[in-house]
Amino acid sequence: MKITFQDKVWEFENGTNSLDMIGEIDKELKKTALAVKVNGAVTDLAAPVNEDAAIEILTGADAEGLRVLRHSASHVLAQAVKNLRPNVKLAIGPAIDNGFYYDFDVDEPFTTDFLNQVEKEMTKIIKKNSRMERFELPREEALALMKDEPYKVELINELPEGEAISFYKQEGFVDLCAGPHLPSLGKIKAVKLMSIAGAYWRGSEKNKMLQRIYATAFATKEELDAYVAAREDALKRDHNKLGRELEYFTTVDSIGQGLPILLPKGARVIQLLQRWVEDTEQKAGYLLTKTPLMAKRDLYRISGHWDHYLDGMFILGDPYDETKECFALRPMTCPFQYQVYLNRQRSYRELPMRLGETSTLFRNEDSGEMHGLIRVRQFTISEGHLVLRPDQLAEEFKGCLELAKYMLETVGMLDKCTFRFSQWDPENPKNKYEGTREQWETAQAIMKDILDDLGVNYEIGIDEAAFYGPKLDVQYHNVFGKEDTIVTLQIDMLLAERFGMYYIDENGEKKLPYIIHRTSLGCYERTLAYLIETYAGALPTWMSPEQVRILSVTDRAADYAIELKKKLEALGFRAEADITGNKIGKKIRDAQMEKIPYMLIVGDRDMAENTVSVRHRADGDIGAISFDAFAALIKEVVEKKAKK
Amino acid sequence: MKITFQDKVWEFENGTNSLDMIGEIDKELKKTALAVKVNGAVTDLAAPVNEDAAIEILTGADAEGLRVLRHSASHVLAQAVKNLRPNVKLAIGPAIDNGFYYDFDVDEPFTTDFLNQVEKEMTKIIKKNSRMERFELPREEALALMKDEPYKVELINELPEGEAISFYKQEGFVDLCAGPHLPSLGKIKAVKLMSIAGAYWRGSEKNKMLQRIYATAFATKEELDAYVAAREDALKRDHNKLGRELEYFTTVDSIGQGLPILLPKGARVIQLLQRWVEDTEQKAGYLLTKTPLMAKRDLYRISGHWDHYLDGMFILGDPYDETKECFALRPMTCPFQYQVYLNRQRSYRELPMRLGETSTLFRNEDSGEMHGLIRVRQFTISEGHLVLRPDQLAEEFKGCLELAKYMLETVGMLDKCTFRFSQWDPENPKNKYEGTREQWETAQAIMKDILDDLGVNYEIGIDEAAFYGPKLDVQYHNVFGKEDTIVTLQIDMLLAERFGMYYIDENGEKKLPYIIHRTSLGCYERTLAYLIETYAGALPTWMSPEQVRILSVTDRAADYAIELKKKLEALGFRAEADITGNKIGKKIRDAQMEKIPYMLIVGDRDMAENTVSVRHRADGDIGAISFDAFAALIKEVVEKKAKK
Repeated sequence: MKITFQDKVWEFENGTNSLDMIGEIDKELKKTALAVKVNGAVTDLAAPVNEDAAIEILTGADAEGLRVLRHSASHVLAQAVKNLRPNVKLAIGPAIDNGFYYDFDVDEPFTTDFLNQVEKEMTKIIKKNSRMERFELPREEALALMKDEPYKVELINELPEGEAISFYKQEGFVDLCAGPHLPSLGKIKAVKLMSIAGAYWRGSEKNKMLQRIYATAFATKEELDAYVAAREDALKRDHNKLGRELEYFTTVDSIGQGLPILLPKGARVIQLLQRWVEDTEQKAGYLLTKTPLMAKRDLYRISGHWDHYLDGMFILGDPYDETKECFALRPMTCPFQYQVYLNRQRSYRELPMRLGETSTLFRNEDSGEMHGLIRVRQFTISEGHLVLRPDQLAEEFKGCLELAKYMLETVGMLDKCTFRFSQWDPENPKNKYEGTREQWETAQAIMKDILDDLGVNYEIGIDEAAFYGPKLDVQYHNVFGKEDTIVTLQIDMLLAERFGMYYIDENGEKKLPYIIHRTSLGCYERTLAYLIETYAGALPTWMSPEQVRILSVTDRAADYAIELKKKLEALGFRAEADITGNKIGKKIRDAQMEKIPYMLIVGDRDMAENTVSVRHRADGDIGAISFDAFAALIKEVVEKKAKK
Repeated sequence: MKITFQDKVWEFENGTNSLDMIGEIDKELKKTALAVKVNGAVTDLAAPVNEDAAIEILTGADAEGLRVLRHSASHVLAQAVKNLRPNVKLAIGPAIDNGFYYDFDVDEPFTTDFLNQVEKEMTKIIKKNSRMERFELPREEALALMKDEPYKVELINELPEGEAISFYKQEGFVDLCAGPHLPSLGKIKAVKLMSIAGAYWRGSEKNKMLQRIYATAFATKEELDAYVAAREDALKRDHNKLGRELEYFTTVDSIGQGLPILLPKGARVIQLLQRWVEDTEQKAGYLLTKTPLMAKRDLYRISGHWDHYLDGMFILGDPYDETKECFALRPMTCPFQYQVYLNRQRSYRELPMRLGETSTLFRNEDSGEMHGLIRVRQFTISEGHLVLRPDQLAEEFKGCLELAKYMLETVGMLDKCTFRFSQWDPENPKNKYEGTREQWETAQAIMKDILDDLGVNYEIGIDEAAFYGPKLDVQYHNVFGKEDTIVTLQIDMLLAERFGMYYIDENGEKKLPYIIHRTSLGCYERTLAYLIETYAGALPTWMSPEQVRILSVTDRAADYAIELKKKLEALGFRAEADITGNKIGKKIRDAQMEKIPYMLIVGDRDMAENTVSVRHRADGDIGAISFDAFAALIKEVVEKKAKK
């Protein structure tokens, strides 16, 4: 048979397996090979190939290769647990992003000590480098083989009639599995058990609670070490932990998931960001509005949200009872802000009309989707709508993008942003989109021209548009790599007509405007979360809730410390004085832990010479300077919105 | 019989009427007398008195006297309409606050022209000074008399068996009526028809729509003139009209009643007020928070709102289905802000903890209760809670009151505020109050001491407290005299325990704090409404959405106008340039109509001499001065928060 590999064709005997073939082609590659793609399908390296095919070798550098390695490692985990506790019953053990897990039905919960034993046992098993052998059985025999594993029996019984029931065997351990797997366990060069969690069988709380072991595995020790180090860094930066520890926010059960309470530090940062965004938008010609957070269903019927978004909204009343008033909390600002435009007839001279609002929105999402400040049920965002003449579209879109980039750059997030051009699904237009094919093609073509013109480096997302038009989404990812949208710019050629939004042109004729929906920074809660993660809690001075802490070395310096605090406050800075009886070393450690940008350490000598001994949380001791010199220093840092 | 009048006793023959008696006692008073109180009951002056009694004469200076006069005037109105249109059927015609009305069933609607005819006809009737004579009839005869008036027949049929069916007769006109009335029509010295409106018979839309004529009447011409002038002024100031005309806000049917849309001018004023309040509170030691706008019912169960306030809240979900998650929009901030305090254990050293929030709240009130920006379903308020040691209560309460007074004084509202000490109802404590009698008596005694100490001049409102404690309410009234609360300060000795809010005292013991609930300015929507009414739309410069308008006299000055606008904006002022081709007179009229504080009129000479010709909306032309001089002038006005 003819095997195509790396654009060359090789001749092998029918039935040769990929591992042997690659051994003849490239001995080094054989060492790192984990699985193979045969005509595009991921397959065992040990599986015989029986016809002409193109093959591709998967290693630890490929996500798919790593999945095979980790899935095989999950079998090793199951074997190790069974070796140590034969009575445990096995559920399932898939590979997941960044690792794998296995669920076990146990009499007594696993302990950390036990995890250590399991890890050692796994290492022992891997060292033996057993082969993983695939075999298939008819249903009756499969059930007989698994008769002591009730979860496996349940799974077998659900397999459709006629489907092969496959198993993988290593040493004496057999597990029901579709594969693919490694040819032999020695290819797992590094494995680490991460944590234990409870998990319901099949994710349903009606079923038994099982014990889940989370773990990860890599093809090299170095990769595991790098992963563990990155994960430790991520955990340290995780806003959902650090943000609570630093008292930026909290959540409480009696209020609910996804409804964070911003503590004074978090509320202050959001106040500062909000004022800066409002002022920047005002300078960019935006008119501020303040519209209601709820409306009767009538409004959402006009906008289309009632048809397209009912499940995502919080409803006040019975949405299906037409005899009673029914309100809904708003998921977007658009139909509300349009009422400002509609307040009277508009002339072409009034366009572009740029409307901006610090807008609170509500999304009725599942509790399980919630995550810290990033996925929430209520959030506040600088949302705006630009109503335009068609000839103004390109320039105004560009202005919106520049404004967003300026803001993301200023807060220090732009360099990690990616861009996504979210389009409709031309194959399935009736799925969720309004408007005609022609309108969509026009809007997307205009947007493409603008983006290409601006040199925006974007990916395309099919079937990710809004129901009324295409979007440019600016994406950001949290410390664990999970990506979300931080800013969105949308072109809307449909809603103006639905709302009867016209303008009178130069010739006195009624015309339909275009609308750009846009944000400039993204919702404040999510931005705060990303800022905490980006700066590991050490927010730039200009947005730090506490910018300066004055630490008195002795009680004698307490009055001087308070005087300095008052002087700084009078200059518009946020300062606190630590005049407790604690030792100066402890005061410095506290301020460092709380990530206060500047510490002013003041003692007898400072009082005598009218100086302050300045320490920066990252740069360390700067030395003793006059108060005025320090005031000038911090003024410059704040006014420049420096990233320190 | 013995008649007591003004603390003296007079002897009259049995059956003498009050009019004759007062004629003997005080001839001048007889002229202005409208009705009489006999042993406390308002009665006709013409009715005979048949036993010993204390009498009190009612004139136009008494609300009850005025009601009798106006009720009599409504009979005159009915007579006049019947004189002009005999086919009209009469419904009812009561006195109301500030006047009276009469409802008529008509074939064709009334016109303004017809109203003028009616007013003349009424004057004619009044001039004849006919007596109003009361008589009673048995039911059958009453029905016979009114056989051509179907509404009167309906009313007679509903009168309970055995009750006197009374009529009043003037000239040939008879109306079914319980009275009391004037002795003669000449006492109506001034009458004015105000407006026509449609009104359903008995207020039900199932009944026929009638035509209602609103009118008023007074005992002197001067009083009517003063009332008409005041009403014209009120109409000009009415925020619900002026605020819409000046484009501060609007409402739309598809969103709903009580959910105003703040247009750019309204949103700007609220932004300015909000920042000023937040900054002032920050200087006063408040910590800013930002808490969710909704919570699960669990939270309201703890706070007591679920038991005491369910009807007033917007519920998301079924409040009675305990198997499903149920949220409610918050009507108050308290239980949310308490979570900030509860974030960790607190020491006595941290108290007083002053928490402030710019908080949006929701009240589920009837559509019929809504009024412009004053009665709304959603509003935003600077709400705060101070958590205190008992020894800090008096000082902190005083601080709260001073802060509120400073803010109300600064916006120009303090001089029209009144104070109300709202207490529980000791007769009916279980009605809506939590806590023991002792707790209430203690809290009210403490509050009374504080108020007396501060010399606050307050009224007492029984049964007006919050369910958790007594309040000091600061009241304001709108242009039509309707009073509402603008600021409230409350002492709460109950909720800390319910929420488990403790502090650790000097001895390491857990103690319950007191809480003050307070606002410093009142909700921004209502405040904006009162400001528009107080200043008739001409808001002080510091809070005006547009502070300066530059008016170019000729096209040549357009660039200069734009340059000045930019210079003013760079200095932090809000300026616009009117460089249209309109005549300067029209530009000035427009700016005056829009109540822009300062106009800078610029022409060739100003360009040549680098000056601006300043005009103030109230003071008129100020003359030509240098730009820097104007900038200094407006800077001072804004920084001082002057009321001009």
